[in-house]
Amino acid sequence: MSEKIAVCVISGGMDSALSASIAKLDGYKIIGVHFNYKQRTEKKELESFRKVIKELGVIKEYEIDLNFFEQIGASALTDNSIEVPVGGVEDGVPITYVPFRNGIFLSIASAIAEKHNATALYIGVVEEDSSGYPDCRSNYISSMQNAINLGTKDETNIEIKMPLVNMRKSEIVSSSILLSVPLEYTWSCYKSEDEACGICDSCRLRLNGFKMANQIDPIKYKDDINVTC
Amino acid sequence: MSEKIAVCVISGGMDSALSASIAKLDGYKIIGVHFNYKQRTEKKELESFRKVIKELGVIKEYEIDLNFFEQIGASALTDNSIEVPVGGVEDGVPITYVPFRNGIFLSIASAIAEKHNATALYIGVVEEDSSGYPDCRSNYISSMQNAINLGTKDETNIEIKMPLVNMRKSEIVSSSILLSVPLEYTWSCYKSEDEACGICDSCRLRLNGFKMANQIDPIKYKDDINVTC
Repeated sequence: MSEKIAVCVISGGMDSALSASIAKLDGYKIIGVHFNYKQRTEKKELESFRKVIKELGVIKEYEIDLNFFEQIGASALTDNSIEVPVGGVEDGVPITYVPFRNGIFLSIASAIAEKHNATALYIGVVEEDSSGYPDCRSNYISSMQNAINLGTKDETNIEIKMPLVNMRKSEIVSSSILLSVPLEYTWSCYKSEDEACGICDSCRLRLNGFKMANQIDPIKYKDDINVTC
Repeated sequence: MSEKIAVCVISGGMDSALSASIAKLDGYKIIGVHFNYKQRTEKKELESFRKVIKELGVIKEYEIDLNFFEQIGASALTDNSIEVPVGGVEDGVPITYVPFRNGIFLSIASAIAEKHNATALYIGVVEEDSSGYPDCRSNYISSMQNAINLGTKDETNIEIKMPLVNMRKSEIVSSSILLSVPLEYTWSCYKSEDEACGICDSCRLRLNGFKMANQIDPIKYKDDINVTC
């Protein structure tokens, strides 16, 4: 039997690192795909990706530059004139939403999957306990899988797996520890690349996950906010 | 009533030029989007796009660089080590198929549409009388529309229009002439940027369309193949 190959979208954050570790546990050889999309913490996330895939072991890696996200903008992550909110996670789609980002990522990852005859594509989307991005919802991902299989060769069959979609952040933390995901290498902060700010939505969700799991986040936060959160 | 905006994917070829002209006829203001994806005739197609949108009149234009297509390759259009076939259009998916190219294009165009509150997205796919690419089939495009609307904000509603999908190439030629599409500026050849080769699948389909429509293609072909085809 030929080997099972999965394309894993790996941002360098906690969620995608766990998602890729689950792919490995599921018996897949991993192709790691990372996107540089002119987000504020592009450099740090790329560094995290490289460390994560080194620990994980991959058969191939793609670092894909998507500079055009800057041309589109319309998000606090890709347009420096829009401030990253730090007041706490609110209802609705936040200004950090990057228009159809996961649609673009999944489309490119599918092209890579088709090239390498991969049969699975792992993405670390989280629906609950998340920022409320529409492109992280499971009904969207399922629909996208359907579109991808219609828009590629008949012999290409890609299953999009989203093992974290219904997990709470605390479960993500515990599962990551269980699977020895190198959380110390992962990066979630939207704002900073040296010390995590601790107050953007992404830091808040991460810190809350560690707190609920009774764990200490190994990464460095500004003013040691981690300890007092 | 606010103005109707459509994002039109315009490659610089005959089909997308007509598709965008139909969008205009349908009463939309046009945002023209062009992709440079490291295809062999990138420079010529960009030049054609610029001429076409100048004639068409657009409210905004995006020229998007997608250099990563070269990293993926796997197509005669994006990998120079694979020859462009010149023996005639055959059944099956040809080696000029670029993995999930239209999926990637539609995803990016959707992000642009969401930013600008556009309600339509025009793409010049042709299902019959075509090269047999899976990402040009109407069932794929419809499914992709569904995915896009699930993966974007609730208030974003994008209809993907494919006015040419069931047209023969000869109808595309006649309709283009009827709508004064500047066919002399369009480019279809897969291989060359100075004079069209006349023998790649794309040239063959185009020339056949002109022949069946009893028209003469205004662009220049190598060895004046146009005249004798």
